[in-house]
Amino acid sequence: MSSGWVNDGNAAMLTDLYELTMLQSYFDHGMNGVAVFDLFMRRLPPGRNYLIACGLEHVLHYLETFSFSADDLSYLRSLNRFSNSFLEHLGRMRFTGDVHAVAEGTTVFPNEPIVEIVAPICEAQIVETFVINQIHLQSLAASKAIRVVTAAEGRPVIDYGLRRMHGADAGLKMARAFYIAGVNATSNVLAGKTYGIPVSGTMAHSFVQAHDSEYDAFSQFNETFPEATILVDTYDTLEGVRHVIRLARERGPAFRVGAIRLDSGDLVTTAKQSRQLLDDAGLTKVKIVASSSLDEYVIDGLLRAGAPIDGFGVGTHMGTSADSPFLDAAYKLVEYDGKPRVKLSPGKLSLPGRKQVFRQVVDGIAAEDVIGGHDEDLTGQPLLEPVMTGGRRRRPAPSLDELRAHCRESVRQLPLSLLGLKIADPAYRVEVSPGLSKLQAECKAGLR
Amino acid sequence: MSSGWVNDGNAAMLTDLYELTMLQSYFDHGMNGVAVFDLFMRRLPPGRNYLIACGLEHVLHYLETFSFSADDLSYLRSLNRFSNSFLEHLGRMRFTGDVHAVAEGTTVFPNEPIVEIVAPICEAQIVETFVINQIHLQSLAASKAIRVVTAAEGRPVIDYGLRRMHGADAGLKMARAFYIAGVNATSNVLAGKTYGIPVSGTMAHSFVQAHDSEYDAFSQFNETFPEATILVDTYDTLEGVRHVIRLARERGPAFRVGAIRLDSGDLVTTAKQSRQLLDDAGLTKVKIVASSSLDEYVIDGLLRAGAPIDGFGVGTHMGTSADSPFLDAAYKLVEYDGKPRVKLSPGKLSLPGRKQVFRQVVDGIAAEDVIGGHDEDLTGQPLLEPVMTGGRRRRPAPSLDELRAHCRESVRQLPLSLLGLKIADPAYRVEVSPGLSKLQAECKAGLR
Repeated sequence: MSSGWVNDGNAAMLTDLYELTMLQSYFDHGMNGVAVFDLFMRRLPPGRNYLIACGLEHVLHYLETFSFSADDLSYLRSLNRFSNSFLEHLGRMRFTGDVHAVAEGTTVFPNEPIVEIVAPICEAQIVETFVINQIHLQSLAASKAIRVVTAAEGRPVIDYGLRRMHGADAGLKMARAFYIAGVNATSNVLAGKTYGIPVSGTMAHSFVQAHDSEYDAFSQFNETFPEATILVDTYDTLEGVRHVIRLARERGPAFRVGAIRLDSGDLVTTAKQSRQLLDDAGLTKVKIVASSSLDEYVIDGLLRAGAPIDGFGVGTHMGTSADSPFLDAAYKLVEYDGKPRVKLSPGKLSLPGRKQVFRQVVDGIAAEDVIGGHDEDLTGQPLLEPVMTGGRRRRPAPSLDELRAHCRESVRQLPLSLLGLKIADPAYRVEVSPGLSKLQAECKAGLR
Repeated sequence: MSSGWVNDGNAAMLTDLYELTMLQSYFDHGMNGVAVFDLFMRRLPPGRNYLIACGLEHVLHYLETFSFSADDLSYLRSLNRFSNSFLEHLGRMRFTGDVHAVAEGTTVFPNEPIVEIVAPICEAQIVETFVINQIHLQSLAASKAIRVVTAAEGRPVIDYGLRRMHGADAGLKMARAFYIAGVNATSNVLAGKTYGIPVSGTMAHSFVQAHDSEYDAFSQFNETFPEATILVDTYDTLEGVRHVIRLARERGPAFRVGAIRLDSGDLVTTAKQSRQLLDDAGLTKVKIVASSSLDEYVIDGLLRAGAPIDGFGVGTHMGTSADSPFLDAAYKLVEYDGKPRVKLSPGKLSLPGRKQVFRQVVDGIAAEDVIGGHDEDLTGQPLLEPVMTGGRRRRPAPSLDELRAHCRESVRQLPLSLLGLKIADPAYRVEVSPGLSKLQAECKAGLR
């Protein structure tokens, strides 16, 4: 059996079958006019006030390297659904279109295009599934992480989520999105290597268990990594803290342990008790970091309860965006062959035509967004910018630190009321421009 | 920037940093005795009665191909945390251990080992993160899918989830797990190619919108794919159905459309109305398939309300296991250097030593499971079997259809009360054998 890894060579096949059957029909009927597709989120997940756009880099890389291999075509031929001439056409297909997009790390709201793809319809259609998959994943991740980072109120947040993220690709890409959203480091070594994200880690319970005593485990680990964080809750948390204190006594001035980690139980109580023990022993510089089913709500609760915790390792709940494990991401045809298009399905009315989002910033604070036509000349910061022309990037990818700084700035621009964990009332205002509203009404009435 | 794909060549790096720091400490102190780690789920997610074990194939493949590249080592060296002699040791490290595991597709319960790894501690420790990541993902997927399949009561279920699954790897691996759990086909073309899963698909709203009229779209698609399902809800669902009926009239005896698809609105009402329209037109053979935010609860509701739906396209909710997007997967040291080990953290007490799970089957129905010691000679079907010895598989991977048949059989063996959507009362019984209980008590008391 194949090992089943996705890579540049087979990513074009990571698509829904219907994209290919639609292409066969377009091909049979000579339809390949220019199409415009908008990727946007239909609504906010429960409890959220805004989203962070993320994942563009991997979309652009995919579009640049998009192609079907001979092996892919031979599999498709084996399905007995596609004509040989179509498969030959597919074998030659590259992405030659234009892309306008919101910069990664930008705050966005429902119905605002995050990525707009303009290309011959076969190219713009076939990339749908992959483009949604990657923008959805990273926007989901960044949008969750920003909440955790906000709740931590400046204390470091470390991504511990790899083991329970959904697969290998999520492990890598979510670590990246988290970093853009302000998470300080990741436990994921491959993400560190691939993206240059700072890596961080402590020790596992199994390490402690493998030694004949907890003290032996601490002592040996400390010999190897004198500054490293020590996990104290394998057997009895306060006993574990006392073993750290004993280590400090034995090491004397050479003692440089930076922190202890709590990973179970009532974190408020154990953090307070541990802090007391450490302080009484003169170890005021030893910090306390916590993990164990943390998310923004738990962190907020811990800090409000006065838990003396200096940093957070956040795993599963951030790594699966557990309270809202998906966004309502859509990729909709808004124009074909120069003609604006809408969908009228119940609850799914779409905005036709190419667009721009104009953010109205007053005194450094975003007041509202206006979604308008691409060629409308409205006031405000335009969020969509050209990033690819004729299948080529217009400029090199920004660094991760640039994206992180941009995200911080974009969040800083939001009204403070949006940054809390609860639903802001009133919600941030997103208007549709009079011009675009008129176009939508005309399309709906069949006048366009 | 690197494209960021995981593959056999870098999967060893898809690990938490602490695995490597622990290894450096083991290395420094000459600790490399044989360790036994158990992978198990601590508890059932809310509302679930059982789980399906899945993902072993990718774990075995990973263990067989595990190694660090020169490039990996050079990154690790750049972190200035690891000694050169340790990195050289890491460069030579391969997985040489044994694996006992539950067959993919088997029903399992909390605390039952799904995978047991026996290897020198450095090898058994470093693989932790990846092994959890893959077993967690596929077990999560299969455990969700079996509920959807059960709710559909024999009607076909198609996986439409790729676009909102968490990344590319989840897209591929979840499609595989779904198929093992009884899902009939996937829209994911690469999963079809990689695993031989049947692929399926209809058309998107964008296809309809790209044509000048809905009827034109149907007619052209039907010319290319005479039997293919037609999506009728882009503008007005019943009008869409009437366009299909018109197509049937125009095509006459050549009309072979197999189904229409509904993707929005009140599916009970529109399915009934659509059925009526089709039947009145003599199109009794045209089936109705539904999609649109389906999960096991919605499907159950539709069928109980008498919606005449013949098949289901299930996307996001199954593709993210949305009501429970993670399992409480743990990988715990249970023995080191011949000595059983336990963890005593609050709520996380573990079962020491190598194990076997004995399923008590009475008249073809599973009555209870007993978790015992590996060398206990208890009655019942043993669930764990040796699958790898000395780093080599003991036999070729079973086919996906074998695993699917095994899953069907394993589910059929469960008491009927467990198969509903609600919590079964009483829950399935999982006992710890007297021998294992005694060992746990002795370990806890520090007697072992």
